[in-house]
Amino acid sequence: MATLRPLSDDEASPEARAVFDAIRTARGTDFVNAFWRTLAHDPPRLRAVWEQLSAVMAPGALDPLVKEMVYVAVSTANGCAYCVHSHTAAAKGKGMTEAQHAELLSVIGMAAQTNALVTALGVAPDPEFDAAR
Amino acid sequence: MATLRPLSDDEASPEARAVFDAIRTARGTDFVNAFWRTLAHDPPRLRAVWEQLSAVMAPGALDPLVKEMVYVAVSTANGCAYCVHSHTAAAKGKGMTEAQHAELLSVIGMAAQTNALVTALGVAPDPEFDAAR
Amino acid sequence: MATLRPLSDDEASPEARAVFDAIRTARGTDFVNAFWRTLAHDPPRLRAVWEQLSAVMAPGALDPLVKEMVYVAVSTANGCAYCVHSHTAAAKGKGMTEAQHAELLSVIGMAAQTNALVTALGVAPDPEFDAAR
Amino acid sequence: MATLRPLSDDEASPEARAVFDAIRTARGTDFVNAFWRTLAHDPPRLRAVWEQLSAVMAPGALDPLVKEMVYVAVSTANGCAYCVHSHTAAAKGKGMTEAQHAELLSVIGMAAQTNALVTALGVAPDPEFDAAR
Amino acid sequence: MATLRPLSDDEASPEARAVFDAIRTARGTDFVNAFWRTLAHDPPRLRAVWEQLSAVMAPGALDPLVKEMVYVAVSTANGCAYCVHSHTAAAKGKGMTEAQHAELLSVIGMAAQTNALVTALGVAPDPEFDAAR
Amino acid sequence: MATLRPLSDDEASPEARAVFDAIRTARGTDFVNAFWRTLAHDPPRLRAVWEQLSAVMAPGALDPLVKEMVYVAVSTANGCAYCVHSHTAAAKGKGMTEAQHAELLSVIGMAAQTNALVTALGVAPDPEFDAAR
Repeated sequence: MATLRPLSDDEASPEARAVFDAIRTARGTDFVNAFWRTLAHDPPRLRAVWEQLSAVMAPGALDPLVKEMVYVAVSTANGCAYCVHSHTAAAKGKGMTEAQHAELLSVIGMAAQTNALVTALGVAPDPEFDAAR
Repeated sequence: MATLRPLSDDEASPEARAVFDAIRTARGTDFVNAFWRTLAHDPPRLRAVWEQLSAVMAPGALDPLVKEMVYVAVSTANGCAYCVHSHTAAAKGKGMTEAQHAELLSVIGMAAQTNALVTALGVAPDPEFDAAR
Repeated sequence: MATLRPLSDDEASPEARAVFDAIRTARGTDFVNAFWRTLAHDPPRLRAVWEQLSAVMAPGALDPLVKEMVYVAVSTANGCAYCVHSHTAAAKGKGMTEAQHAELLSVIGMAAQTNALVTALGVAPDPEFDAAR
Repeated sequence: MATLRPLSDDEASPEARAVFDAIRTARGTDFVNAFWRTLAHDPPRLRAVWEQLSAVMAPGALDPLVKEMVYVAVSTANGCAYCVHSHTAAAKGKGMTEAQHAELLSVIGMAAQTNALVTALGVAPDPEFDAAR
Repeated sequence: MATLRPLSDDEASPEARAVFDAIRTARGTDFVNAFWRTLAHDPPRLRAVWEQLSAVMAPGALDPLVKEMVYVAVSTANGCAYCVHSHTAAAKGKGMTEAQHAELLSVIGMAAQTNALVTALGVAPDPEFDAAR
Repeated sequence: MATLRPLSDDEASPEARAVFDAIRTARGTDFVNAFWRTLAHDPPRLRAVWEQLSAVMAPGALDPLVKEMVYVAVSTANGCAYCVHSHTAAAKGKGMTEAQHAELLSVIGMAAQTNALVTALGVAPDPEFDAAR
């Protein structure tokens, strides 16, 4: 089920295939997942999203594994099953251990629970938390 | 605005005050934020949530600062302003630098963007991502 | 802060004021809350929403208090602070006790937690749960 | 599709199997659904989630059927298909009639609609709804 | 997987079949999708939802294609895969071009990204945006 | 309340002020809203977000007003009050009439309602909607 069909290498335009190649090189694998193959209908956007993602997820002040775990957390809260699966796989590829995965799940579940409690209680922000004062 | 009023130390029951004291000791500050003061209407639940949170957020396979950043990410995606503010403050308290905060924001924004694209495209999960096969 | 201004009785059209009066009669109070006063810019829609809400929330196979608690639960998960406050007040007006409120909060928090765990784990539905088979 | 594989009885550790048995006894059925089988990778967390859920969903100030319906409502708003299916099945198991299910759906749909209207209108909370004043 | 089974024409009551016929006439096709077939368990609600939808989506101050694109946007943010697919198909049926679809996706992705940034930053609304002042 | 403080013109770096000036020129107003002033702590990201937004929202296959209305729809479903207010103001600035605003609200509310119904019913996608087959 899709609103736009993923494109095979043969169906993709040369510009899109160049991005597929960049993905393969960056990841050291021949596998290009369906998200990129679907964006390939619009090669300039495919390139823009890939470049933005590469820059955001690169090593910096945060470790790439931490970034993948944050990505899994956001994807879970947004209910994006595809993203949960692809970024959990990426986190494992970057060394996430079973114990780290288990703790990540616990934090995600805890946050979801207290987010709901806070919203249902209507707790007003403590002024101590305001960085703008 | 609240659906239940935060309780001052004087209004809280001895059982609730004991949890306030545990929070003060654990955090090394006299400040007890409104979330806990609101849960104090139901002291056993106050204790249960505090103990569950303490266990989940303790150092383990993941660093406490990483856990706070994951908490901020989930709270953002769930739209809980109070939680975003309290856990961003907690992350700063655990040493999050401005550069780390900036990268955290970029990952959260990137994830939200691709979550939406994937959902709007209806991308079907690649079998390569399935840990159950 | 609003994208459309709530209307006072004097500013509302006769058609909108008639709905205000229906709200007052149904609730046995002179108070008309800001949601209805904002919808009053579009009197036919004001009437349609009020009539749909009245029909949905009327006693039927489910008790009106149960319906208000379900409303609070949905509003919490959707992050609508106004709705959480107005329907918690309505539930109290229909007899929700403090103990019932506390249990409602626990169920909402528990559901949010397991919703997140299930999504992060990508648990595939058991065929036993399928009403369509 | 899963990020972690559900475990069969034979694959689960003795500690996890003990929780499976507790689930079977509490529910009076041999069936243990995939959520628990997936949590079984981390037996202490499996036990903790099961015990927390059992306590929260037990009869108290609210009827267990009401709690299941609230669970369905939250799960719907959070977009957790697995949870919607498992808790709708649980609600039917606790006696939810077709008419009650139909009314539950109507309240959930109505709440979602007015949640969106309130957010799009930016309606400011009426002070009358503030339990903290 | 469903919590309620879609009904075939033969299984539907005469009142539900009359709505199926109205849908067929309005759309100029024999195809009636599963959403309506599932609502058919409750014929008065089936009729009410169909009539409300028809009125809302009819040509007015906004073009029906614009309305379908707004519907896709909301459905994406709410994570309703069924709705994303059915309303993307409807938008294509009303003339949405590939270029329009691509721009719609870009706006949805951009909005999701800045929504997350604003929430994570806790940006306070500028008074200039307040229609109620 | 904010996790990062908006910067005044005097506090912003020359690189950030250059983006403020670009915003002023593009919009034909001296007013720079708090979102941009908060992003100004990280001038390269400020520039990147502004340039991405400008490109996405520019006239193309879709009219800029349609894009603003889609933005309001996504922001509503994501519960971003700031974004709802800023993009409703932008839509009004691009000519959205009261009647168009009213219809936009109706579509958003209708979509939220049927999204919830579809999710609660677990309606399986009709193969007719699959663009990938």
